Amino acid sequence: MANNIVEPRTLPGFMELLPQDQIEFNRIKRIIESTYEQFGFLPIDTPIIEDSKVLLAKAGGETEKQIYRFEKGDNDLSLRFDLTVPLAKYVAKNYGVLSFPFRRYHIGKVYRAERPQKGRYREFYQCDIDVIGDGELSISNDAEIPSIIYTVFKKLDFGKFTIKINNRKLLGGFFESLGLEDKITDVLRIVDKVDKIGKENVKEMLSDLGVDDANQNKIIDFISAHDNTISYLDSLNIENDSFKKGLEEIKYVSKYMNSFGVPDDYYKVDLSIARGLDYYTGTVYETILDEYPEIGSVCSGGRYENLAEYYTNKKLPGVGISIGLTRLFYVLNEYKLLKENTQKAISKVIIVPMIDDLTYPIEVATKLRARGVNTEIFLEEKAFKKKLNYANKQNIPYAIIIGEDEVAQNKVTLKNMETGDQSTVSIEEIGL
Amino acid sequence: MANNIVEPRTLPGFMELLPQDQIEFNRIKRIIESTYEQFGFLPIDTPIIEDSKVLLAKAGGETEKQIYRFEKGDNDLSLRFDLTVPLAKYVAKNYGVLSFPFRRYHIGKVYRAERPQKGRYREFYQCDIDVIGDGELSISNDAEIPSIIYTVFKKLDFGKFTIKINNRKLLGGFFESLGLEDKITDVLRIVDKVDKIGKENVKEMLSDLGVDDANQNKIIDFISAHDNTISYLDSLNIENDSFKKGLEEIKYVSKYMNSFGVPDDYYKVDLSIARGLDYYTGTVYETILDEYPEIGSVCSGGRYENLAEYYTNKKLPGVGISIGLTRLFYVLNEYKLLKENTQKAISKVIIVPMIDDLTYPIEVATKLRARGVNTEIFLEEKAFKKKLNYANKQNIPYAIIIGEDEVAQNKVTLKNMETGDQSTVSIEEIGL
Repeated sequence: MANNIVEPRTLPGFMELLPQDQIEFNRIKRIIESTYEQFGFLPIDTPIIEDSKVLLAKAGGETEKQIYRFEKGDNDLSLRFDLTVPLAKYVAKNYGVLSFPFRRYHIGKVYRAERPQKGRYREFYQCDIDVIGDGELSISNDAEIPSIIYTVFKKLDFGKFTIKINNRKLLGGFFESLGLEDKITDVLRIVDKVDKIGKENVKEMLSDLGVDDANQNKIIDFISAHDNTISYLDSLNIENDSFKKGLEEIKYVSKYMNSFGVPDDYYKVDLSIARGLDYYTGTVYETILDEYPEIGSVCSGGRYENLAEYYTNKKLPGVGISIGLTRLFYVLNEYKLLKENTQKAISKVIIVPMIDDLTYPIEVATKLRARGVNTEIFLEEKAFKKKLNYANKQNIPYAIIIGEDEVAQNKVTLKNMETGDQSTVSIEEIGL
Repeated sequence: MANNIVEPRTLPGFMELLPQDQIEFNRIKRIIESTYEQFGFLPIDTPIIEDSKVLLAKAGGETEKQIYRFEKGDNDLSLRFDLTVPLAKYVAKNYGVLSFPFRRYHIGKVYRAERPQKGRYREFYQCDIDVIGDGELSISNDAEIPSIIYTVFKKLDFGKFTIKINNRKLLGGFFESLGLEDKITDVLRIVDKVDKIGKENVKEMLSDLGVDDANQNKIIDFISAHDNTISYLDSLNIENDSFKKGLEEIKYVSKYMNSFGVPDDYYKVDLSIARGLDYYTGTVYETILDEYPEIGSVCSGGRYENLAEYYTNKKLPGVGISIGLTRLFYVLNEYKLLKENTQKAISKVIIVPMIDDLTYPIEVATKLRARGVNTEIFLEEKAFKKKLNYANKQNIPYAIIIGEDEVAQNKVTLKNMETGDQSTVSIEEIGL
C-alpha cells in the first residue's frame, strides 16, 4: 500500500483553512450575508461553470489570460472570474420575470489563474450586492450603499473605518473644464495612483502627458483633502454639465447619510478616488480601515450605466459593491485583527461520559440539542484525561461530566472549561 | 450594439433558480447546516479545483469519465466530484494538527459531467457529515447518525420518513454461511436491486449466478420484511464471525435510538439495504419519504474502514452521511412538496415613500434595520400603484406607507399585505 501513497497537497493559491479558522471565516461571511438581507437584497446562486461564449462576451486582455477555460465533450467552458458577468447574464435571461429595481446579493467563489503570491488567491469568495434598474435607477440607491457598508464593517468590528465616495462625473467634468477632454482616461489613470506614488510623481506623469504646469497644480489642488469638500466644489463655480450633474449627485448622496445612520466621521467625499475607469459612470466607493490604510480598500464599488449590454438591448443601470472576502480574511489574519475572543467552537458544550452505558449521557445530549444548544458527545472509549484534553483543544466552553453518581442522582456535573468552576445540577438547571 | 448581443443562456445540467426559489433553497440549506452544527460538527471548505494526481488517486472507471479535467499552465487540474475525496486529502494533510475523532461537515458544490436529463445535474450541492477516528472509532457514532438524519428531516417537514439501516457484515456473513463466500459481491449487487426489479427477477439473476433454489429462497426470506428484524436475526442462530459481529453492531445501534430521540416508527432495520458495495464495511443508512418511496433515498451513508488509504498509511475509519441537496430540491419541487406557506421574501417590510424628501422614510428604515427587521425601501419615483405592485410581487408581508400626513404626525401607516388591514402607528408601535 505504501508504494501507492499520493502526497495529500492542496494547490498553491487556494485557501484551505483549519476548522478553527474556518469557524471565524464563516462567522464573517454570515455577518455579511445577514446584513445584505437586512437591507432587503435577494439571494441568487449561479453556476461556477459557464459557456465561454457567454462568460467572455465582454472580457478581453488581462482578464482573459487568467480565465480557467477548457473543453468537455463539445462544450467550450470557463469558470466565472467575478459575480458581475453572471449577474448580467442572469438579469438579461430572466428580464421578463424579475421585478425591478432588482436587488440581489451573491456570495460565491470566483476563479482567476493569477501568479500565486502572498495574499493573492486563484479561488476566492466575492460578496456582492447590486441594485439594477429597468431603464433608470434613482440616485437614492447610491445613498443607501454607504449605509450597508457601514453596517457590515461596524458589525465586523475591525476598528475605525472610513467610507470614501467620489463621483466620476465630477472628475470627468473638472478635467473637461481644464480643456483636457481628450485626455480624461489617461489623467484619471494617473490621478488614481496618487496614494501610491505621491503628488510629485503624479505631476511628472501629467507633465509627460502634455498637461501644463497650471493645470497640473489645479489637478493636484482638486484631488487634495479639503475641509469641506462640497463647499470647495461649489466655490469652484465650474460651468460644465458633467461637473454640475456630478456635484448635484454627490450632494444628494451626502444629504441622506445621517438618515441612513452613517455617522459623519465614517464617511468622506474624497476627490482622489477614481476606480474602475471603464465601467463606473457616477458615484464610486472605497472603504479604508483608518489604522491600516496600506491594506487598501476592503469594500469598493460604484454606479454603472449598463449592466448587460452584451446580452440585451435593454438599458440596465445599477449600483453595487463587492467585498473580496478571501483576501480580506488573509489580510485580517496577517494584521492580527481577527478577534481572539469570538466563538472559536461550534459546540457550546461537550458531554463526557465516564460510564459504559451511554443511555443517560445520550438523553442529556438529546435534551440540550432540542433546546437549541449545540452539543457534542465524546463517544470514544478513552481515559478521562484524554477526553478532557480533546474538549480543551476544541475550545468548547462547557463540559458536562457524567459518571455513576450523576446517573444515580439524575444530575450532571457542569464544568466551565475556562474558569475550571464546576457544579452538580439537574438537566433543567443547565443554563446554556 | 445589437449586432454583438450574445444569448444569455445557462448551460444544461446546471441549476439556476429564480430568487423566490433560491430563498426556499437557502432555507433548506440553512436547516441542514444548523442541524449539523447542533450536533457539534466543524465546518471545512476545500477548493473546488484540485491537482488531478491528488483528486484521482483512487478514482477509476465510470467516475473518471465524468470528471471535469483540464490543464492550465503546467498544471493538470480537476474539479472535485464529491466531498469525500477532498475530506480524505484534508485529514491526511492535516493529520498532525486535527483532534480525533474529527467531526466535520461540508456543504459545497461538486461536479460530474453526466448526460443531462431530468433531475440529473452536472453541478450540485452535497451536504456531508463524517466522523473520522484515528485508528479506531466507536460504534456509538453509528448510533448518533440516525439522530442527525431524524432532526434534519423533521425540521424540513416534508412528511413522514423512515431511516433504514442495515449492516454489511450481517449481509456478508449470511451469504458466507450459505457457502456463497466467493460470490458475495455479485449477490450483493443483485440483492441491492430488489426494490426496483422485484423478488422474482432477483431469484432469476441469482439462479444465473449459480445459486441453487434453496439458497435463493433463503436469500429472499432474509431480505424480506420481518416483524422484529433483530429477533429474526437471533432466531437464525448463524455461526459466522462476520454475521455475529454485524448482529452485535446493529443491536448496539438500535439500543440507543430512543435515547437519541428517534421515535420507533421513524427507524427500521431493513436487510435489503446494500449500498456502495466497495466502500462501506459496517452500518449503512438510507432515508425514504414514506409517501414517495419512488424518489429513492434522500439521505444515505455508512461506516467505512479506511478514509484516506491513498494519502496516508494511517488507518482512519469513519462513518458519515450525505444529502444531495440539488437533486432533493428538484424532486421536492416536482412533487410539490416545497412549502407554500414558508417565508418567500427576504424583507419583512417594504417602506413606500409618497413624498419627495426621503429623510423621514429613510430614518424609519434605519430604525427598523437596527432592530433586526429586514427592511427594504422603494426608492424609485413611480406611481403609488406601481410601488405597491412591486411590493406585492416580492411577497413582502408588510408595507409601511409614508405620506405628508405621516411625516407631520411623526407616524407611519402599516399595511398587512395579506389581509389588507392597515393602521397608523408610531415607529415604536410597529410590532414586526
